[in-house]
Amino acid sequence: MANVVATEIKHLDINNKTCNDKTSTEEEDVVNPWNVVSKSDTGIDYDKLIKRFGSSKIDAELVEKFEKVTGHPVHHFIRRGIFFSHRDMHQILSTYEKGKPFYLYTGRGASSKAMHVGHLIPFMITKWLQDVFDVPLVIQLTDDEKFLWKDIKLEEARQLAYENAKDIIACGFDIEKTFIFSDFDFMGQCPNFYQNVIRVGKCVTFNQVKGIFGFGDSDVIGKISFPAVQAAPSFSNSFPFIFGKANIPCLIPCAIDQDPYFRMTRDVAPRLGYHKPALLHSSFFPALQGAQTKMSASDPNSSIFLTDTPKQIKNKVNKHAFSGGQATIEEHREKGGNCDVDISYQYLRFFLEDDEQLKQIEKNYTSGELLTGELKKKLIDVLQPLIASHQERRAKITDETLQAFMTPRKLKYTY
Amino acid sequence: MANVVATEIKHLDINNKTCNDKTSTEEEDVVNPWNVVSKSDTGIDYDKLIKRFGSSKIDAELVEKFEKVTGHPVHHFIRRGIFFSHRDMHQILSTYEKGKPFYLYTGRGASSKAMHVGHLIPFMITKWLQDVFDVPLVIQLTDDEKFLWKDIKLEEARQLAYENAKDIIACGFDIEKTFIFSDFDFMGQCPNFYQNVIRVGKCVTFNQVKGIFGFGDSDVIGKISFPAVQAAPSFSNSFPFIFGKANIPCLIPCAIDQDPYFRMTRDVAPRLGYHKPALLHSSFFPALQGAQTKMSASDPNSSIFLTDTPKQIKNKVNKHAFSGGQATIEEHREKGGNCDVDISYQYLRFFLEDDEQLKQIEKNYTSGELLTGELKKKLIDVLQPLIASHQERRAKITDETLQAFMTPRKLKYTY
Repeated sequence: MANVVATEIKHLDINNKTCNDKTSTEEEDVVNPWNVVSKSDTGIDYDKLIKRFGSSKIDAELVEKFEKVTGHPVHHFIRRGIFFSHRDMHQILSTYEKGKPFYLYTGRGASSKAMHVGHLIPFMITKWLQDVFDVPLVIQLTDDEKFLWKDIKLEEARQLAYENAKDIIACGFDIEKTFIFSDFDFMGQCPNFYQNVIRVGKCVTFNQVKGIFGFGDSDVIGKISFPAVQAAPSFSNSFPFIFGKANIPCLIPCAIDQDPYFRMTRDVAPRLGYHKPALLHSSFFPALQGAQTKMSASDPNSSIFLTDTPKQIKNKVNKHAFSGGQATIEEHREKGGNCDVDISYQYLRFFLEDDEQLKQIEKNYTSGELLTGELKKKLIDVLQPLIASHQERRAKITDETLQAFMTPRKLKYTY
Repeated sequence: MANVVATEIKHLDINNKTCNDKTSTEEEDVVNPWNVVSKSDTGIDYDKLIKRFGSSKIDAELVEKFEKVTGHPVHHFIRRGIFFSHRDMHQILSTYEKGKPFYLYTGRGASSKAMHVGHLIPFMITKWLQDVFDVPLVIQLTDDEKFLWKDIKLEEARQLAYENAKDIIACGFDIEKTFIFSDFDFMGQCPNFYQNVIRVGKCVTFNQVKGIFGFGDSDVIGKISFPAVQAAPSFSNSFPFIFGKANIPCLIPCAIDQDPYFRMTRDVAPRLGYHKPALLHSSFFPALQGAQTKMSASDPNSSIFLTDTPKQIKNKVNKHAFSGGQATIEEHREKGGNCDVDISYQYLRFFLEDDEQLKQIEKNYTSGELLTGELKKKLIDVLQPLIASHQERRAKITDETLQAFMTPRKLKYTY
């Protein structure tokens, strides 16, 4: 998987509004695993993306079914439209309703040791889904992808995967329900995985990956065939030690930029006699400097990292979080702030679970009652304990625990 | 590996003569792993192929060095120009002379259960090389390639590999010196193998495999990246259980149609810090009906199969072996036979080890003293015991023996 946070977002509207600007309708946003560029100043048009990708909007009906079937209110990422699109989620809910099994699959491509808060998004919802549905989860660390795409050594790519795996485990996954694997390791541990990679590789032409991913003649063959490696974990028989020979459907929570992989996967699945994977798509996580700037692992100020100290968090938010407030206090009190572009508010949408509090903050900031400094303080107060407790949990994860999560083994389920 | 016997030979000159025909110099022979087509009636121009591929002719000087360094006369395949071309064989001999290690790598792509005598050629010389040099040997069974290229099921491709492996073992390989592997199995047993596949896949572009193998936009991505799978066993660290971390050069005996894989491999090796593999290239094995016809596994009469009974061998040779003799006995006595096109004679070049006898047969057939029926009898007398003893050896190969050969393990060498 590539970063769930697009690294080349040029213009971004995380409020997920439809853009009716005539000029922007002529050119399409670029959204693929390596590049996210909006052709419009108002940002990615998520509604149009849904249309173009052929996915479905997460609507009130689905949310209702979700809550009815599970008996749980949906996660605030779903309530707030951060996860906004899906494929076949109705089917997964029906499967669950009938007491039939499914499993979760997500992943991460580690391109640096340090993960930032945005990288937590898919894991936070995945953890929640695992808790709610009580199902197995497989997490793919695409160290092979990172080695192919980046100017790094193979060993480095593997090490980054292990480092990130500890952060992922720190999200609270249940070891009895979760298998984490690095492609470089797992491909050499389980013939069934490679066999599915080749099965997929037999169904997809260069023309197709050219169309889906924009590959060209000067791309290396490792890249060209990589989509089959990300496709294979969508099929339960890639994990015989978990599922035996059972053919079980899979649900993939991921950022929408990963959808091309799974459109391809869904296209080949029926030809292989497998279930099409279902998907839950998130929008992108904005950089501190604002949705229009590029988030970069090499720029420590572009985001809040999971390794940041309380002081660093405070300083970063205060200094760098793009503000939707006015130039002076007087003007702010008069005109109010703009939550749509204010990064502190946007981050709170991700990390402040309490709907009432969030609503109050939005109201107060929009009215001008809440000043930018006060809003930033609220974000700092949410992020500092969140990061601190993440660090505490991560510090407790030993190499043995990591090894245990990454060992192919039976989970607590029987098929 | 594809068949060592080209399945689409249109015109073939196994005597390895240079063609000076003006018209044929304008069009080039097609020689790649899936297609061998001569543009000239006189067959593949091997000398021109050496020039085009940039390999070196096996000349008197190399043969002399070979015999001096090993203290053995060279194999009759080399003496007779059946193995006619090489890359870096001088270097391998120098390595051996200095007491430094190297290893052998060859392979087979099993597209049917039945192997024919032509398929034995690379294994016969490989067995001889293993005996002479006392070195480890790895044999790749490219069941993934066959699955990708043929309309067969994955399980079928694996089964064909196992069946062929028994025939390969029956060639007499030493279990303490030989590791045989199916790609579908071994990729899931040894992470180092996949890691080298991806290392190669990071160095080779689609443009390059297009140029080397003739792949097009409508080829599937599994095919496009397969060359990296055939390249990886050229590097000793793909087999850590045999070589540890040692970086040891490799010698590959194969039919010349496999050279494109290894040209590519030699191109990337220095960039990866590995040795370029050395090569010994054979010419193609002709069909019974003559060098111009297509050898086909679906036509049992196109070759002598390793499963044929003595009676079948006799009938096939008598009925189907293309004759270089004259139409009547009188004419034959007068004009003599043509060994260059006579398949019985050509097969004897492969399977009759005694140079004196072969020379006498050639002389007598060319002069007309030996009749076609008599020549055929000589071939039958060579093939019947050869096949019978192969069958005897193969019958003794149990699934346990097969399993033992195919288990990743330390061989008798230490590095």
